[in-house]
Order: sequence, then structure tokens, then C-alpha cells
Amino acid sequence: MPGKRRTPAPSRRRASARKAILSAAVALCREDGYARLTIEGIAARAGVGKQTVYRWWPSKGAVVLDALDEEVAAVLPVPDTGDVLADMRTVVTAVVTLLADARWGPLIAALLGEAQHDPAVGASMVERFITPRRAPMVRRLQRAKAVGHLPAALDPAAVLEVIFGALYHRLLLHTGPLDAAFASFVVDLVLGRLAVRRARRGAP
Amino acid sequence: MPGKRRTPAPSRRRASARKAILSAAVALCREDGYARLTIEGIAARAGVGKQTVYRWWPSKGAVVLDALDEEVAAVLPVPDTGDVLADMRTVVTAVVTLLADARWGPLIAALLGEAQHDPAVGASMVERFITPRRAPMVRRLQRAKAVGHLPAALDPAAVLEVIFGALYHRLLLHTGPLDAAFASFVVDLVLGRLAVRRARRGAP
Repeated sequence: MPGKRRTPAPSRRRASARKAILSAAVALCREDGYARLTIEGIAARAGVGKQTVYRWWPSKGAVVLDALDEEVAAVLPVPDTGDVLADMRTVVTAVVTLLADARWGPLIAALLGEAQHDPAVGASMVERFITPRRAPMVRRLQRAKAVGHLPAALDPAAVLEVIFGALYHRLLLHTGPLDAAFASFVVDLVLGRLAVRRARRGAP
Repeated sequence: MPGKRRTPAPSRRRASARKAILSAAVALCREDGYARLTIEGIAARAGVGKQTVYRWWPSKGAVVLDALDEEVAAVLPVPDTGDVLADMRTVVTAVVTLLADARWGPLIAALLGEAQHDPAVGASMVERFITPRRAPMVRRLQRAKAVGHLPAALDPAAVLEVIFGALYHRLLLHTGPLDAAFASFVVDLVLGRLAVRRARRGAP
């Protein structure tokens, strides 16, 4: 993929075509839904040839995943106030806000759906989108274990599967609101009784 | 849908066509994958006209959901040994076994995927497949609340969203094995510290 420094004209053109393609994919998804998205449609909207899209991406799912990856750019920060439960509530509430956002939630749901029919999309999604974004949460849970605020045997990645699983359940099946109350409910249910509270740390 | 008693010949023919269509849909899904499934293919395999399929089902997702609903016929029983944690481990292990079964897991994953592109499939899936199968688990959790083995404020349906969310996470994203160890891990993480143990009930 094109770099940003010392870019000769062909690289700049590539970067600009790439950006046009990603923007076109997101715009078309939002207008017509992921199911109607085609590589042809993306190419037409971006003003490039179909082969230009296929040169960089194997499928429409791969284009949308890259768009999502670049536009939901910031890996959500995880605070460390010393209270792991409060910190996890903060970050999971931010995740829920993203999933409930009409600009992003439907794209993420569509990719989780596409992953069931195109396994390469699922594998890329885990590797490039999900794992890097959970890494700061894994580190926060590990620090809590290190200082004895969470049981040493707890598997942070598995805990996050349970928490994110609950969020995806509502995202995919619309079984209830994706809101701050649900974020706190899930974090408290999963971690609430495991976490050593700050109050107790200060106790004699 | 055709009944089973006092069926005149046309009803029997309908029942037999219906069964042939559902079997064809499942067989084709397993052979070629859900993504390649078409109403035309189902009709050809079942030896009926395309219009016969469309008369009863609006989409291929609806056919597969009905097939799943009828073939995963038994609503999994939930034991009541007095130990809600052990009983939930038992039933969630049975669910995990079903999801890990190559005959059923991929069909359920495909329908969860299709639901992202065809909202009617998602709504039917929740209403006709998921909710009835969770009902005995909801009742088991409610009984545990009634006898003080779980906190009175606990929302059984929301608890099941967290538990099933974790299972769907592995089903949809292949982030780890769907096995009895994961079933017990999830049940213990979500309910373990909430549940009053049998041992404690017997204590003075």
C-alpha cells in the first residue's frame, strides 16, 4: 500500500485511487446496504476500472474491511485509573457507542455476516480489525491480574470473547438496545464479582 | 402447513413436497455451502417447481430456518438438580455440542450471517428458533431466583444473551474451540460467583 512520505506522482495517484475506492465502498454500503454492493459499483463510483479494485482486493468484503479499518482509525484508548471494573466499563461503553452508530454498526454487522460465506473475510477481520483493537483491553486486564485485582488464572482474551459476544448478539440479532446500560451490565456480570474493588484495596 | 391426522391425498402430497424441499435445502447447504444455495437449486433437488418453493417461503434463508427448526427438533432439556450452576453447565455444553456439530453449526452460522443481509431471516430466527429454545433455560434461571440461588434482580434473558453471545463469537469468528471446557468457562464466568452453591445451602 502506498506510503505517505516522498511519494512520486504514480504513488500519489495510487493513494488517491485507493482512498476513492474505500470511500465509494462505504458510501454505497450506507446508501443501498452491503448485500447490493458490487465491485463493479464500487469501481464506477470511485471512477476507476474494475481491475484496479481487483488488483488490490480479492472481494467486496475485503474492500469494506479495509475501509472500516482505516475510518474507525483510532484504537479506543483504555484508561487506567486503578479500578479495572470502571476502566472496562468506560471502554466497553465506547465500543457500544460505535456499534450503535448507524455509520459503523451496520458495516461491522455486514462483515460479520459476510464472514459466514467468505472465510477469508472472517480471518482478516479477526487478525486486522478485532485483535489490534482488543490489544489495549487485554493489556489492561493483564495489569489488573499482575497487581492482584483480577484472578491470576483469568484468560483476558477469553473474557473479551464473552464481553464482545454479548455486544455482537445485540448487534446481529437486535435482541435489545446497544447502550451504556447494556455495556455496564455486561462488564459487571462478567467481571464484577471477580474484580477487587478500589475501596477494598484501601481497607486495612 | 399440512397437519398429520386425517390428511386427504392433496395434504399428504403437500407434506411430502414440503419435506423434500427442506431436506434438499439442508443437503445442498452441506454439499456446496449456504452462499451457493438458490431457490432454483432447492426446487430441482426436491423435484418440485420453483413456484412451489416460493408459495411457502419468501427466501432461501426462510427455507433453511424451517429445516433447522424441524430437524433440530428437540428443545434441549434443562435439568433441575437444585444446583443452577451445574444445570446450566449441562445445557450449555449440549448447545456447544450442537454448534460444534458439522451438520448444524455451519447452518446456524450461515443463518446468523444471512440475517445481516435479510432482516426478516433475523427476526424469524429470534422468534421461531432462538426464543423457544431458550425458554426452558429462562425458566430454570427464574426458579433459581425464586428460591434465592440467584439474585432477584438478575434478568435471565439478558444473562442468556451474554452466554450465547460468547458461543456465537466462537461459532462466527473461529476464535477458539467450541467444546465442553468453553461451555463451563462461560457459565462459570457469567454465573459462577452469583450462584449460591448447594454446599452453602446445606450449611447451618
